[in-house]
Amino acid sequence: MSLLVVGSIALDTLRMPGGKVYTDVAGGSCSYFIHSAAFFSRVRVVSVVGEDFPKKYVDGFKKCRADLAGLKVLPGETFRWHGTYHKDMNNRTTDATIFGVLGEFDPVLPAKYCDSKFIFLACSQPKLQAKVLDQAQGSPVAVIDTIEFYIKNDRKELDKVIRRCQGLFVSETEARMMLGEDNLAKCAEDLHRKYKLQFVVLKKGEHGGILVDKNGMTPFPGFPLMKITDPTGAGDSFAGGFMGALAKAGKTDGAALRQAIVSATAVASHACEGIGLSGLMKATAAQVRARANAFVKMTRLG
Amino acid sequence: MSLLVVGSIALDTLRMPGGKVYTDVAGGSCSYFIHSAAFFSRVRVVSVVGEDFPKKYVDGFKKCRADLAGLKVLPGETFRWHGTYHKDMNNRTTDATIFGVLGEFDPVLPAKYCDSKFIFLACSQPKLQAKVLDQAQGSPVAVIDTIEFYIKNDRKELDKVIRRCQGLFVSETEARMMLGEDNLAKCAEDLHRKYKLQFVVLKKGEHGGILVDKNGMTPFPGFPLMKITDPTGAGDSFAGGFMGALAKAGKTDGAALRQAIVSATAVASHACEGIGLSGLMKATAAQVRARANAFVKMTRLG
Repeated sequence: MSLLVVGSIALDTLRMPGGKVYTDVAGGSCSYFIHSAAFFSRVRVVSVVGEDFPKKYVDGFKKCRADLAGLKVLPGETFRWHGTYHKDMNNRTTDATIFGVLGEFDPVLPAKYCDSKFIFLACSQPKLQAKVLDQAQGSPVAVIDTIEFYIKNDRKELDKVIRRCQGLFVSETEARMMLGEDNLAKCAEDLHRKYKLQFVVLKKGEHGGILVDKNGMTPFPGFPLMKITDPTGAGDSFAGGFMGALAKAGKTDGAALRQAIVSATAVASHACEGIGLSGLMKATAAQVRARANAFVKMTRLG
Repeated sequence: MSLLVVGSIALDTLRMPGGKVYTDVAGGSCSYFIHSAAFFSRVRVVSVVGEDFPKKYVDGFKKCRADLAGLKVLPGETFRWHGTYHKDMNNRTTDATIFGVLGEFDPVLPAKYCDSKFIFLACSQPKLQAKVLDQAQGSPVAVIDTIEFYIKNDRKELDKVIRRCQGLFVSETEARMMLGEDNLAKCAEDLHRKYKLQFVVLKKGEHGGILVDKNGMTPFPGFPLMKITDPTGAGDSFAGGFMGALAKAGKTDGAALRQAIVSATAVASHACEGIGLSGLMKATAAQVRARANAFVKMTRLG
């Protein structure tokens, strides 16, 4: 079924442990989402870049068979994020955020996108996320992601738009902040109930996460990777794999959600194996399938 | 098959978030191990307490059908640990450690213990752990635990005794310290290979852990508990459930190790539901079984 993502496209500068610096790396939620979801589903994209955005990255999106009718090119600079990773890769510092044309982002859906059955609202201002839902027709499965900034500074609008969604992606820090509660299992369950959602995915990075739906809790570990080259975009790749798998299944029952966790874990692990999008671009569909199968097998306890 | 634990018995003072203080709470690795392993196997105990150790706790061990022939009562005070938990329960501060009679601990096995088929060397000086192995006859499955102190200060002896064991329990901090490596999956695999062990269990607290054996990796999540009352002894309870399940199975093949992870997770979760041993004492065998079954079911991804 049709899948729409609305979010950012960036050019990242990544300072890795050891001192190596990578500049003009394609990033942002949409870039990772497109390359991840592509293993399972075609993706419709609503985003914005500046005139400086390299053609090679657009060609990469096209190779993923993404529908780019909703990708605007505006005069000015592409959104830029500069980050430095610390030695253990679980900690990073944002050195700079330059909004560029993302500051003028107005998510207008091409008419043909309005019937999308699955919608991922990647992190952006809650009012813009709401505007996407305003344009959607029918009863899509809308899943939302956010960041600490909007939880702190735009909570009322954020709460309103979450209530209009079916699913929520949230990190452990965000979940604790939203509820003022430390226990993560309780956070996941409380968010599921409070916002009357079909499902919540509480993400714990390398430690996996907890899925909550009407059948209860599904705690899952992370994929044990021997080497993490670049964790940038792991969360957005997880979301891409998850939504891609749901769109492919065309449903959100318990089995589809668990399969989506498996697909998401597999693609996110590939995303971490190369700088920027290169880990995802190197991975073949067969490799992603093999890793997904390995993950199901290695986590089966009885 | 026969199961022996050698380790500490303590009287703990626990300062919980909110300010409540509990004194003279039975603790130490053996206390939690006995009450956890008892759900699966009888336990032979080698430990030491002072004359101040309350009879009610000894009665508790007897109710677990523990063999206490190796429990010495020496003139003097029982080992004491004072700790303060922070708000999120994952962090605690040690306020005081009073060794008392534990300073004179000399692990002499009663003759009838020497044929034990499964041996758990709870944390103590590596030389004392080695002394236990010196007394063991046949080819027992010996599993060792340690703490950062011995990794820092007695590494050579620790390495020697680990090489004599079949299994290793290690926390994420300890694993990183032992190898100077941040990646936990790599740590687990490197420890498995370096010490030529049958298996390694790398424990990540509420995030579960990673089991490594000759079949590969088994990453597992923690049990999603809605309320954690007291995490003291969760690691020792995990070890007790794990070793109890192995002793019950009488083997250490892949299926037995995965079942041991399940049993360990179930009892450790009960241990966290009451102050000190009370969570374990309240739990019935049927409740532990039900939780173990629930854990297998909730972690099955495909």
